[in-house]
Amino acid sequence: MSNIDNLSVNIIRALSADAVQKANSGHPGLPLGAAPMAYELWAKHMKHNPKDPKWSNRDRFILSAGHGSALLYSLLHLFGYGGLSIDDLSQFRQSGSLTPGHPEYGHTVGVETTTGPLGAGMATAVGMAIAERYLSTKFNKEGYPIVDYYTFVLGGDGCMMEGISSEAFSLAGTLELNKLIVLYDSNKITIEGDTDIAFTEDIQKRFEAYGFQILIVEDGNSLEKIGAAIEAAKEDKSRPSLIIVKTKIGYGCPAKEGKASAHGEPLGEENVKALKEYLKLPANETFHVPGEVYEHFKKIASKNIEAQEKWNEIFERYCNAYPEMKKLWNQYYNLDIAKELLENEEFWSYQNKPDSTRNISGMVINRLKDLVPGLIGGSADLAPSTKTYMKNEGDFSKDNYGGRNLHFGVRELAMAGIGNGLALSRLHPYVSTFFVFSDYVKPMARLSSLMKLPLIYVLTHDSIGVGEDGPTHEPIEQLAMLRSQPNFTVFRPADATETIAGWYHAITSQKTPTALVLSRQNLPQLLGSSKAALKGGYIIAEAAKDVPDAIIIASGSEVELAIKSKEQLEKEGIYVRVVSMPSMEIFEVQSKEYKESVLPKGVRARVAVEAAAEFGWGKYVGIDGAYVTMQGFGASAPAADLFEEFGFTTENVIAAVKSVL
Amino acid sequence: MSNIDNLSVNIIRALSADAVQKANSGHPGLPLGAAPMAYELWAKHMKHNPKDPKWSNRDRFILSAGHGSALLYSLLHLFGYGGLSIDDLSQFRQSGSLTPGHPEYGHTVGVETTTGPLGAGMATAVGMAIAERYLSTKFNKEGYPIVDYYTFVLGGDGCMMEGISSEAFSLAGTLELNKLIVLYDSNKITIEGDTDIAFTEDIQKRFEAYGFQILIVEDGNSLEKIGAAIEAAKEDKSRPSLIIVKTKIGYGCPAKEGKASAHGEPLGEENVKALKEYLKLPANETFHVPGEVYEHFKKIASKNIEAQEKWNEIFERYCNAYPEMKKLWNQYYNLDIAKELLENEEFWSYQNKPDSTRNISGMVINRLKDLVPGLIGGSADLAPSTKTYMKNEGDFSKDNYGGRNLHFGVRELAMAGIGNGLALSRLHPYVSTFFVFSDYVKPMARLSSLMKLPLIYVLTHDSIGVGEDGPTHEPIEQLAMLRSQPNFTVFRPADATETIAGWYHAITSQKTPTALVLSRQNLPQLLGSSKAALKGGYIIAEAAKDVPDAIIIASGSEVELAIKSKEQLEKEGIYVRVVSMPSMEIFEVQSKEYKESVLPKGVRARVAVEAAAEFGWGKYVGIDGAYVTMQGFGASAPAADLFEEFGFTTENVIAAVKSVL
Repeated sequence: MSNIDNLSVNIIRALSADAVQKANSGHPGLPLGAAPMAYELWAKHMKHNPKDPKWSNRDRFILSAGHGSALLYSLLHLFGYGGLSIDDLSQFRQSGSLTPGHPEYGHTVGVETTTGPLGAGMATAVGMAIAERYLSTKFNKEGYPIVDYYTFVLGGDGCMMEGISSEAFSLAGTLELNKLIVLYDSNKITIEGDTDIAFTEDIQKRFEAYGFQILIVEDGNSLEKIGAAIEAAKEDKSRPSLIIVKTKIGYGCPAKEGKASAHGEPLGEENVKALKEYLKLPANETFHVPGEVYEHFKKIASKNIEAQEKWNEIFERYCNAYPEMKKLWNQYYNLDIAKELLENEEFWSYQNKPDSTRNISGMVINRLKDLVPGLIGGSADLAPSTKTYMKNEGDFSKDNYGGRNLHFGVRELAMAGIGNGLALSRLHPYVSTFFVFSDYVKPMARLSSLMKLPLIYVLTHDSIGVGEDGPTHEPIEQLAMLRSQPNFTVFRPADATETIAGWYHAITSQKTPTALVLSRQNLPQLLGSSKAALKGGYIIAEAAKDVPDAIIIASGSEVELAIKSKEQLEKEGIYVRVVSMPSMEIFEVQSKEYKESVLPKGVRARVAVEAAAEFGWGKYVGIDGAYVTMQGFGASAPAADLFEEFGFTTENVIAAVKSVL
Repeated sequence: MSNIDNLSVNIIRALSADAVQKANSGHPGLPLGAAPMAYELWAKHMKHNPKDPKWSNRDRFILSAGHGSALLYSLLHLFGYGGLSIDDLSQFRQSGSLTPGHPEYGHTVGVETTTGPLGAGMATAVGMAIAERYLSTKFNKEGYPIVDYYTFVLGGDGCMMEGISSEAFSLAGTLELNKLIVLYDSNKITIEGDTDIAFTEDIQKRFEAYGFQILIVEDGNSLEKIGAAIEAAKEDKSRPSLIIVKTKIGYGCPAKEGKASAHGEPLGEENVKALKEYLKLPANETFHVPGEVYEHFKKIASKNIEAQEKWNEIFERYCNAYPEMKKLWNQYYNLDIAKELLENEEFWSYQNKPDSTRNISGMVINRLKDLVPGLIGGSADLAPSTKTYMKNEGDFSKDNYGGRNLHFGVRELAMAGIGNGLALSRLHPYVSTFFVFSDYVKPMARLSSLMKLPLIYVLTHDSIGVGEDGPTHEPIEQLAMLRSQPNFTVFRPADATETIAGWYHAITSQKTPTALVLSRQNLPQLLGSSKAALKGGYIIAEAAKDVPDAIIIASGSEVELAIKSKEQLEKEGIYVRVVSMPSMEIFEVQSKEYKESVLPKGVRARVAVEAAAEFGWGKYVGIDGAYVTMQGFGASAPAADLFEEFGFTTENVIAAVKSVL
């Protein structure tokens, strides 16, 4: 190890320890142990340009062990990313700083994805590696390798224990994603103590089982060995690689090294001093970076700038040689079809016959595939049921990286994490499973929202309409679960028009993920449905009276029931307005006037009708309102029997309306 | 294979195919392929007594691939469980029948756990195997092996792909749960087609990595080979076993065998006939069971009855020899401490100083461990933070199966599934992680609710009170997520008294799981808090006026803020009632009169104050109400800064109250 390398590694360690100590909060253990591998990778093996952090052909780096954020911020500072200053480091974990507790995508330049929930970064990395294979197949031409990058992901024992990493890596092996390189910071310590208490599996063997190349670095401080392993990983053309780097948590801090207490709390001022002494750095200086270190990093960065300049030049020639590819590239990266799509009559067309909304969704997907070149997606082994297959577009596999249909296997959570990775790679992805299994998807859906990624969740088989499969397969509380999530849109359409509106909303959304919640069973085409569904809630059937006696608010399959009930009530001289509410979230952001026009404050006789938990409807029906909703879980029987059994009848809705008059 | 064995296997196949065909819905593929292994296991290797399905020392059988329920029902029928008749089989998947689409615990006698969400049964089985090791260590005496049973679990490719199985089996290997035996129905087919499209991993190697014994049966129709593998699995005294049984999905049905279409739809009448012809059964008879087959199963069952009688005799002698153990046994199996605990002053005592509710919870756990002998629990590698460690009770490990502290590793989802398995084994388990990671836990928490298991979820670090760890670690929508789930109680206490009340509720709950949502930060002890918290919502600070001008409803850390705001408003002549609402669910089931006394319909000026998403509060504040709740996600900063930044100030609460007056 050269002196400057050694010094650089130790400066990263000291900066990280200082940041945590100053904040009096954070995780020094990982940065101290993993600094050598991170430095070696960033300095000598990774293609990245601090001056253009969004360069499309950069290598990706993901810190899946997001609690080690101080390590990442130290690197970003030394490389000169986004002007991340020493001040920013010293504001670690403080209000409004660029250096939050866990790395946040969109908040700090150079952070490729938000991490913190362990394992998440692993699945996201697999998504990025899939995107690279896909995009390179779509775009590269002989002599023009314009898409050609590696995805590096660094994680620890926690990431390895989480089920999501097993799901994601099993798929990565199947797909032979050879440009995925996993660095495993193996320090044998977790919060409760030695990993032996819960985690004695043979990681090497496990990853061999997935089809990975395994490389082992016994000395996590040896830059040379780490570097050799990274190069060996790059050279494998048929397998992803796992590099097991054996480290010591809290390395260099005599009182903490190798101990669980090094993980998640500041070392303490005296220990930080002891660390610096051990590392032969000035013990009393904080946030200290020698000029020669800055110089050293600047030199590395400039080599990378050259690499990009070379790529720019190739890309320019490529665009000249293949103007149609240039056009396609722009369509991938700068698609704006909102206006065009809104007026595209064919897009909005449907057959006027009863149909399931999952079927209609399938039809829409097959229209969109030609309009949105970046559309790519698939299901967790349910495509024939969720109707998410793009016809004639091929299956993404090790033999066909250009296929647009992804097969995730029975792995809902990794699917969503991979979806995030695809969205971060500027594709337009959708993922799909049964609505009830959104439970499995939730942790990654939350990250879609946090990162403002417009990932589309196609969730079919909603409500007790599932029927015979019974309560384990019948979503009840899932609407509330997803509606309550910030920056997430749930859309539960009532018929074809509303389903198309839902897809329109989802595909044109820029910063918000959307869940399309779709029926298994056939639904009729409703007379009053329209593009007004794009407002989230609208009057689908008006009362024959200036001020209605009551309002029924319903969504999805229950809108038909609401309209039927309204018609019967009319015969009794009770005049009811029916509001179709496919999306509470979209309705909420409409103007105050619009909302008042749909749900006038003066009309307090209100009934919510939805085959789901009532939770959340109180906002619209208020203290005086009534509910025709699900109590408890569903049951196993034909769907029609269940709707009857659980009270979704005109009789019940009429009684509910009368109860609030 | 003897004739009667062969005939029995084929009758199971035909019954399963008939049930699915009659229902015109269901999954025939697994029963046809897996009938031999299930028959061999149930007939010759499993200790179970249809006449006493709850015999504590029975071997457990879990059909993790729950969609194959027709297989399980056929077995239960032939063995004479709970009078499951041919009529019941013919009512498969119909309203009110004993044979729902997926096996439901508590609904059909002989079903050990609810399955359907793939992988769930795997984690539950691990929980049961842990329970067996624990109970056998606690109770067995020289010559009295009164707890001594195997846990068998049968799953397919889907179960193997789900991350939860990786989590659970890695832990099972670490813990050397040798009495756990996994039967893997390996048919290489999933819904989207051949498993090769998404799942080429080497299962044998993967399970070797976990520390399992691997046994392979190449011919899934060979009862002899299956039987030998099961016996070899039983003989391994230090490792759990995986038996890979290679089968053909839809075996015996010429048009469907080996095809994805055999999985999840009826074979079709003609194909059912062809199947029966192939199996040499009368092709035109449905639900046909020859008398000799019933006789055969009766004979097997009677051997099992003898086994139990022998056990009964040993157990009686054991009780005589160890009367104190008999007492302990009854405490495990029939504990009723509700009344005693309510009056136990020491249990309700606390120090009058600011403290975090997670800390108080830790204190309560250490009181309960002596009062509830079946209490066992642990955390997903966060015990030092979640304060869930039982002092002086040891750690459950391969070297100490009597330890009461479980180390789940960083595996939240499997933890909850294992918790269900412990609860099904009549222990009193709790599981713990950070509240935000209830996202990971959700799919199994749903099964706790469905199965009516009073599993306790200790979820600490609630709200933006998490502080520096930032938005990935700050729960916002998780309260709504869990509150909306049927048969689940969320309890978010404001101080020590309410925390103890929460634990009281949780530990005395018989049929409902409870989540205790606890603060990381210190909270003051409130003057008005009391056992009235057991009603879910109560007046913690009354307005100095007969009819209050307004009501503030708050929970947890925000109750203090509500009270402070009330006090300031009083100085301005505005008289406000403060309602502490630790649990909406418990409040909801109080009498109408009580609810009206706390939240009188006449008082419409209402404000909800909670550092979480507002979703769900509309029910209490109504159309005229106001919210001081979280918009969007949190941020990374010291907690006190965040409460200020996100508007949890008396100023804001006062403004909200004034806005609704």
